[in-house]
Amino acid sequence: MTKGIIELDASFISTGNAVGKKEFEGPLGQFFDTHDTDDRFGKNTWEKAESEMQRIAFNMALKKAELGFDDIGAIFAGDLLNQCAGSSYGLLGCMIPYFGIYGACSTSGEGIMLASVMTTHKIFDLCAAVTSSHNCSAERQYRTPIEYGGQRAPTSQWTVTGSGAFIIGDGEAGKVKIKAGLPGRVIDKGINDANNMGAAMAPAICDSFCRFFAESGETPDDYDLILTGDLGHEGASILRDIMQIEGYKFGENYTDCGILIFDKNTQDTHSGGSGCGCSASVLSAYVLPEMEKGRFKRVLFVASGAMMSPDSIKQGESIPAVGHLLSFET
Amino acid sequence: MTKGIIELDASFISTGNAVGKKEFEGPLGQFFDTHDTDDRFGKNTWEKAESEMQRIAFNMALKKAELGFDDIGAIFAGDLLNQCAGSSYGLLGCMIPYFGIYGACSTSGEGIMLASVMTTHKIFDLCAAVTSSHNCSAERQYRTPIEYGGQRAPTSQWTVTGSGAFIIGDGEAGKVKIKAGLPGRVIDKGINDANNMGAAMAPAICDSFCRFFAESGETPDDYDLILTGDLGHEGASILRDIMQIEGYKFGENYTDCGILIFDKNTQDTHSGGSGCGCSASVLSAYVLPEMEKGRFKRVLFVASGAMMSPDSIKQGESIPAVGHLLSFET
Repeated sequence: MTKGIIELDASFISTGNAVGKKEFEGPLGQFFDTHDTDDRFGKNTWEKAESEMQRIAFNMALKKAELGFDDIGAIFAGDLLNQCAGSSYGLLGCMIPYFGIYGACSTSGEGIMLASVMTTHKIFDLCAAVTSSHNCSAERQYRTPIEYGGQRAPTSQWTVTGSGAFIIGDGEAGKVKIKAGLPGRVIDKGINDANNMGAAMAPAICDSFCRFFAESGETPDDYDLILTGDLGHEGASILRDIMQIEGYKFGENYTDCGILIFDKNTQDTHSGGSGCGCSASVLSAYVLPEMEKGRFKRVLFVASGAMMSPDSIKQGESIPAVGHLLSFET
Repeated sequence: MTKGIIELDASFISTGNAVGKKEFEGPLGQFFDTHDTDDRFGKNTWEKAESEMQRIAFNMALKKAELGFDDIGAIFAGDLLNQCAGSSYGLLGCMIPYFGIYGACSTSGEGIMLASVMTTHKIFDLCAAVTSSHNCSAERQYRTPIEYGGQRAPTSQWTVTGSGAFIIGDGEAGKVKIKAGLPGRVIDKGINDANNMGAAMAPAICDSFCRFFAESGETPDDYDLILTGDLGHEGASILRDIMQIEGYKFGENYTDCGILIFDKNTQDTHSGGSGCGCSASVLSAYVLPEMEKGRFKRVLFVASGAMMSPDSIKQGESIPAVGHLLSFET
């Protein structure tokens, strides 16, 4: 068996994010860099609005670090839209070497990991990772247009309207270090309910956590914060259960980006947030800044993705999932 | 301006491929590892057939090198299907750490480059890159079902039914070395005819070639073979013209995977082949084996991708494109 952990010596130089109205009204609203009051970001289609969010988030991250497009060696970007069109259109004009990636909601973790590999090994001085999702473009692509008003299942998650961008340098450059990564394996335990992605994703996330703990010798207690993105309430509860069966007890230090971003009681988002923009915006707006302030010293993050397509579900397939793990330290 | 070239010290350990009936009947038919006479690969949907091709191609590559799943540190995979479902379902069960990538027809180049970065820097001993496309799954997703019998434009390309898999190790391990990579920039020159992807892609490919020649100091004459995948007849002709304007004359040593795979006169494929499976199958079945035999010593390859989606075209957007460059040597 080959090793799973990739040792990294990278760090976050800066981050940027942009979210929609509902996300701004949620518990983390005050932390986001910018939001739009009608989720349109000045555009006439939801798809263009999603691309525009990526552009805004990436430019925000560059501006904070006083960097220009020419400073970035390569960009890793992806989203939920068919053919990842949110990213290719959103980042047009940057003229930065571009790696398109796809990991559903895990895309942010995949991008940060690959960008960190590049800067750890001095392939480029600086790289960027950018992802997004938009509730309205996702709803009409995966389910039905918003206007249809379909009833949502109790276990369903609410696709976040948001984008997060990360500028990544070598281990000396920024305060929050990226110490290790572990790419996830695609696992399918037979869940075929697209309204319960948390259940489909939990086993893949469990696999990544278990492989990391086994190989590193660490335990959940070695971290101030264990974070998944995005299992939501349903998936996080399942993950706690199956981790305990594997011998790892998650305590109060465990939570999920999909739980953090919305208020369960007042925002009617059922099992919580999801989408490539969920963990990206929560990490960039809340978790990494709190690490800089000293609230969390060591954070273990697994970005989780459900890798089905609307067609594969219609064809009766179950839902494969993947979880990309990263460990952060100040 | 940051540098664009990534120096690599990797090599191909083995390759595998599987193609459909039309590809088997083409000029390269005898070179492919395996083909299916009805393009179904024993499955009841075109999407499952595409996934099955990936599984067959990857297993073929492993078998030739006498390797098992456990020997592969990570796999980079992608395809044209919405949410890259061909890859996530096709490689299910391998239990190999999985990076999903998306670069349209350039996905094979992107995967080989990222896998080579991993083995060059000893992050993993062996990595794999796998891509696929299927004419029937692509036609109904991008255009109309085959049964509809829509008239094709003279400049349109024929999506290849095929998959190619590459096992990549460090520079010492295999005969054909991967010496350098240059990730492409997303460029959109305003072409909005989805039936002329060659015209949309040629400027992005030109950008990658020019950046590589300028930074390396090399010229087209330094290579035995300059290969693009997949511009087709129309795009290759445009590329020759715009490269000449930039001061680089492509001679007889230039061709394109989309030109090589079908017979223009007898196979009615108009501008030639395309799709994530085109350059992957042509490289793995024909170009790399011919390098091993000594016919080509130095090959410069640019994998080209048109990054639109059916929705973005309907919404009146033009077509962004990207070209990922790799140089191979024996």
